[in-house]
Amino acid sequence: MSARALFVVAGIGNGTGTGASAARVFSKAGYSVALIARGADSLNSLAAEIKASGGDAAPFAIPDYKHESISTAFASIKAHWPSTPLRVALFNAGYGVWGSFLSITPSQFQESVDTSIVGAAAFAREAILEFKGNELNAEGKRGTLLFTGATASLRGNTTTSAFSAGKHGLRALSQSLNKEFGKENIHVAHSIIDGGILTDRSKERRNDPSWENNPDVRLSPDSIANAYLYLANQDRSAFTWELDLRPAHEKW
Amino acid sequence: MSARALFVVAGIGNGTGTGASAARVFSKAGYSVALIARGADSLNSLAAEIKASGGDAAPFAIPDYKHESISTAFASIKAHWPSTPLRVALFNAGYGVWGSFLSITPSQFQESVDTSIVGAAAFAREAILEFKGNELNAEGKRGTLLFTGATASLRGNTTTSAFSAGKHGLRALSQSLNKEFGKENIHVAHSIIDGGILTDRSKERRNDPSWENNPDVRLSPDSIANAYLYLANQDRSAFTWELDLRPAHEKW
Amino acid sequence: MSARALFVVAGIGNGTGTGASAARVFSKAGYSVALIARGADSLNSLAAEIKASGGDAAPFAIPDYKHESISTAFASIKAHWPSTPLRVALFNAGYGVWGSFLSITPSQFQESVDTSIVGAAAFAREAILEFKGNELNAEGKRGTLLFTGATASLRGNTTTSAFSAGKHGLRALSQSLNKEFGKENIHVAHSIIDGGILTDRSKERRNDPSWENNPDVRLSPDSIANAYLYLANQDRSAFTWELDLRPAHEKW
Amino acid sequence: MSARALFVVAGIGNGTGTGASAARVFSKAGYSVALIARGADSLNSLAAEIKASGGDAAPFAIPDYKHESISTAFASIKAHWPSTPLRVALFNAGYGVWGSFLSITPSQFQESVDTSIVGAAAFAREAILEFKGNELNAEGKRGTLLFTGATASLRGNTTTSAFSAGKHGLRALSQSLNKEFGKENIHVAHSIIDGGILTDRSKERRNDPSWENNPDVRLSPDSIANAYLYLANQDRSAFTWELDLRPAHEKW
Repeated sequence: MSARALFVVAGIGNGTGTGASAARVFSKAGYSVALIARGADSLNSLAAEIKASGGDAAPFAIPDYKHESISTAFASIKAHWPSTPLRVALFNAGYGVWGSFLSITPSQFQESVDTSIVGAAAFAREAILEFKGNELNAEGKRGTLLFTGATASLRGNTTTSAFSAGKHGLRALSQSLNKEFGKENIHVAHSIIDGGILTDRSKERRNDPSWENNPDVRLSPDSIANAYLYLANQDRSAFTWELDLRPAHEKW
Repeated sequence: MSARALFVVAGIGNGTGTGASAARVFSKAGYSVALIARGADSLNSLAAEIKASGGDAAPFAIPDYKHESISTAFASIKAHWPSTPLRVALFNAGYGVWGSFLSITPSQFQESVDTSIVGAAAFAREAILEFKGNELNAEGKRGTLLFTGATASLRGNTTTSAFSAGKHGLRALSQSLNKEFGKENIHVAHSIIDGGILTDRSKERRNDPSWENNPDVRLSPDSIANAYLYLANQDRSAFTWELDLRPAHEKW
Repeated sequence: MSARALFVVAGIGNGTGTGASAARVFSKAGYSVALIARGADSLNSLAAEIKASGGDAAPFAIPDYKHESISTAFASIKAHWPSTPLRVALFNAGYGVWGSFLSITPSQFQESVDTSIVGAAAFAREAILEFKGNELNAEGKRGTLLFTGATASLRGNTTTSAFSAGKHGLRALSQSLNKEFGKENIHVAHSIIDGGILTDRSKERRNDPSWENNPDVRLSPDSIANAYLYLANQDRSAFTWELDLRPAHEKW
Repeated sequence: MSARALFVVAGIGNGTGTGASAARVFSKAGYSVALIARGADSLNSLAAEIKASGGDAAPFAIPDYKHESISTAFASIKAHWPSTPLRVALFNAGYGVWGSFLSITPSQFQESVDTSIVGAAAFAREAILEFKGNELNAEGKRGTLLFTGATASLRGNTTTSAFSAGKHGLRALSQSLNKEFGKENIHVAHSIIDGGILTDRSKERRNDPSWENNPDVRLSPDSIANAYLYLANQDRSAFTWELDLRPAHEKW
């Protein structure tokens, strides 16, 4: 393909969750893949894996989700792919802190909000600035900006004061951006991931083969990634801002 | 394919809107198509059109959306396709009455609620009873039950007392069914169609080529239908209950 | 007081719940009280009780919540109090049917929707027509129309397909009416009652003194009625459409 | 009264809005009043005004809404009223930044979120720690914690990316706290103020007597304050988490 498109994802954990699956799925769909995360190890091995399977990927480690760090990463991405237009950007980062409100320290609370909202806004700014320079593609879009939400995006609960504050803020940001930039054919979407996701970490934490092996009770990261690819492929006559995703047997 | 699957849709208007597009899209995807609606004319011509393009379709006219009428239609469908399992059912019917609350007659109010909620429940009952007899398919599902909602599903407004009451009730029904029957691998989903849909009727009513010809400002029925096909193809690890669909430039 | 005001309530159960408490609370606040319900027994004894305590009340039994029945009741009310303006109207009726979707009969489903939505609309019509004839009162209002909602107004669940469909529809109706008639200084409000209410029936069903005697775990009907009185007294610069009410210890 | 109760409010603007009205209303209801805000001028004049009208008030200026500043203010409040239990706390502060997403600087975005969410969490922590030491009062409560929200608490929009992110986060915080601390008879509530509030600033900005003088089209701060007093007086059998407040003629 003469004009490849670029997919950038921020937040890939240890390389077995939603962000990493999205990187693989968009790579298979023909996108070059820019990987942003804190911690270079997972980034490097995921980039190597994608390249080994014939894809095009590069890692961009950042120290934190502050505006300057994200801005620098986008500059490096642009230098790496000077003529590949950014078409899809996924902000998948978060800071998981749960527990009694009084047990969460003020700095943990700050970090939760900084990552989920302020970091997301910095990422959105860079992505949107890139998208604005694009021509419309075949679906009539300049770009698609995706955010990963959670049950806590819709509902605060006894142990989620900090996490749900961040995720509610992220959801409001995504809705505001959808309304503001839809007019420029930039598609902003938000997912509500409602249930446990099958990752190396969740497997280890649960240590329960009956959970791991039962696709009715946990989310597969690849299924989430396929939903993101579907959203990226929606045409301009019917954009989805928000969809929820949960396992068939989830109690909700 | 030795075992075709059946798609049933209720509510096809004059054959140019969401229900009819869904019939065409699912036919192209390999489904046999059962068409339910009041008024035989559009039904017959749509069935003929699908057959002419190589698909398998049959019309089932009903006098109203009462339980008995819908139950009879499902019995006829089963007689027509005795060995084709019903896999996807779409309730797309509605009764559009708008205006000042005091201008809507009690019987119009009743009809709005009867079609949107009571009729939907009757349709759901028949579809679920069929789905319960199915084996799991490749995606780990017994069936997918789809409902078409609207902006009024989320918000009442000055001219939508009757319409939004019906659509809110439909949404609650769909959420209840999602929670109850997900456990049996029956996937229930609901769409929020937020914007004007391009149909023969809306073209005539608006009489505005700048609207018709601009995919940024109105929904294409085929794009909605493609969303329904995506939902039907979701696997059991990640079901969507609800997504919204609106044109890129929609003010919301 | 030369110009008494009239309060009308529909739905008083066996006289120990929200509707009956509201009748008592508004009577103490100086309103004449019109009682509407199916079943004359509770009506008559509640009217007698209010009169015995120095209030002014009269019962208006109806056979069902159809438009004609409600319209007739309002005509009788007007005949009974020809010169007392109706100022506050509370629709508190409902039809409680819970259980697996397939166990709810089509006629039960119909009745749930008819009572909660169609009946409410008929009641709203009569009340609004009365309010439109009123002068503004000291709070700048022509009247206040109150609806009793429930947890199921916001959320469908496995056993609430019919009940939540009705309650969602009622909520949409109330929101539509708030938006349409606020402009005429008619205040429409909706409560979300989220928890068990202490009534003779709930006491008998639970048979649990630790629940009865603990105000932290169940709603007192008088507290709900006080909320309704607060809403009726709000001035035109700050109307509440919706508030929720639940016991301090309720898990939600 | 032998045992006065203390009301603390953070965020009083220039002394003519919601926070200041709440101070006056709770003072008239018999509370001692602690005033927290950035900027000492309005604080001092409001405290003087309340004392001149026979109330008990003191100002506590803070440089910002960081945890340390708020914690210090609460320590000073406790030193000022060593034996008066804190019973009601209102967080009314915000940081209003509106405009196109790309025109809002990263530091403005950070400040919006820091004030609305992180500052609110710091305030909540101090208030809850105080409440936990209280006995139950006559209404069965240890304390009431109130938060002021806005239309943007429920909906992002084209010019509210930063403001709605902060207000959504605040709402999630308040819901989480309601669920966690209701069990300890601490009542947490959140208001949705949907409309323009009549203050010196809004008068000056609008410069429109027809708006100022029409109680149907703008919120009176005193009416909001009365709603807060009502919430503080709710008994434990029926706590409201959230209510909305808007002028009678508001379009919404």
